[in-house]
Amino acid sequence: MGLKRVVVPVIGAVLALMVHAGDAPSSAIEYASNGELKFPANYREWIFLSSGVGMTYRPAGAAMPEHPDVDNVFVNQEAYRYFLQSGTWPDKTSMVLEIRHSESKGSINQGGFFQGEIEAVEVHVKDKRLDGGWGFFGFGEKQATGKPFPKSATCFSCHEQHGAVDTTFVQFYPTLQSVAKAKGTYREAR
Amino acid sequence: MGLKRVVVPVIGAVLALMVHAGDAPSSAIEYASNGELKFPANYREWIFLSSGVGMTYRPAGAAMPEHPDVDNVFVNQEAYRYFLQSGTWPDKTSMVLEIRHSESKGSINQGGFFQGEIEAVEVHVKDKRLDGGWGFFGFGEKQATGKPFPKSATCFSCHEQHGAVDTTFVQFYPTLQSVAKAKGTYREAR
Repeated sequence: MGLKRVVVPVIGAVLALMVHAGDAPSSAIEYASNGELKFPANYREWIFLSSGVGMTYRPAGAAMPEHPDVDNVFVNQEAYRYFLQSGTWPDKTSMVLEIRHSESKGSINQGGFFQGEIEAVEVHVKDKRLDGGWGFFGFGEKQATGKPFPKSATCFSCHEQHGAVDTTFVQFYPTLQSVAKAKGTYREAR
Repeated sequence: MGLKRVVVPVIGAVLALMVHAGDAPSSAIEYASNGELKFPANYREWIFLSSGVGMTYRPAGAAMPEHPDVDNVFVNQEAYRYFLQSGTWPDKTSMVLEIRHSESKGSINQGGFFQGEIEAVEVHVKDKRLDGGWGFFGFGEKQATGKPFPKSATCFSCHEQHGAVDTTFVQFYPTLQSVAKAKGTYREAR
């Protein structure tokens, strides 16, 4: 059996698998040359963590608005798998907060809320090169690059003070909450 | 250069890639020998389509309950990618409806709703071997296998009459709605 007859099909198989692997969504974060974050175009294929409706951290009192904002949170696959193993986030973790308008009446639906168009996208990134180790970037509805929020923005202080795991709101992500508790990384009463 | 010195590392590379490919979530549906559907254990790694809160298809009137049910819908990756290309669902499409309790006050949250524990999981499956081409299976909170719903269940008639694409509620999935409209598979006014 000639070398070529063995090696060529094997290399073909390797290439086929590499192409197949290339189909998997990439979730490495990338920065533009001006330091802004590039829009993570495929975040809807990342891991969904949870969704909220009209959540507010201010004292309640006002009635729920007619069309409260809804939000979805997604995290890149690599960080999710790392978290399942360790209860902690690796460097380059990216969490996308997608804020949408809500709708109440539409098609056959007569009550409650379903999700409408995008209002804004923000990304929370763990990066050891950033001051404090984490940064927030705002993309509006869908800008190509996101500007960093200033360190004075309340998102920094609120996440640092109240995030159950490493400045992230794992207390609102049911599937991760039990993991963090089992791994001993969960901070109660945040 | 010996045959072994070339082939062995190449085969090693193939095996490494195959193991890596094996990490990707599998989403093929499987039936138990009694015809029940096996629980799709990794559905939280599937593609998230949307989330609703206290949605109702009955005439409104009753006020939103204090803790309305919330639901998340996931679809297997292969079906999602097929839909993006065609606006239609392939055979073996699996859509998971995950119903959760909602919470309102917890941690620093003071209003609106966030997602709590699972109440029930149901799966909607496209399978040409099923009567009518689609079936529904109920798993309670997390049973190992799901019993098929009888054809008399209202889910069948409601999905058939009102689903915007092939008995599915694409009208409530913002990212798919635009795809179906572009591909000409969207039925308006459902």
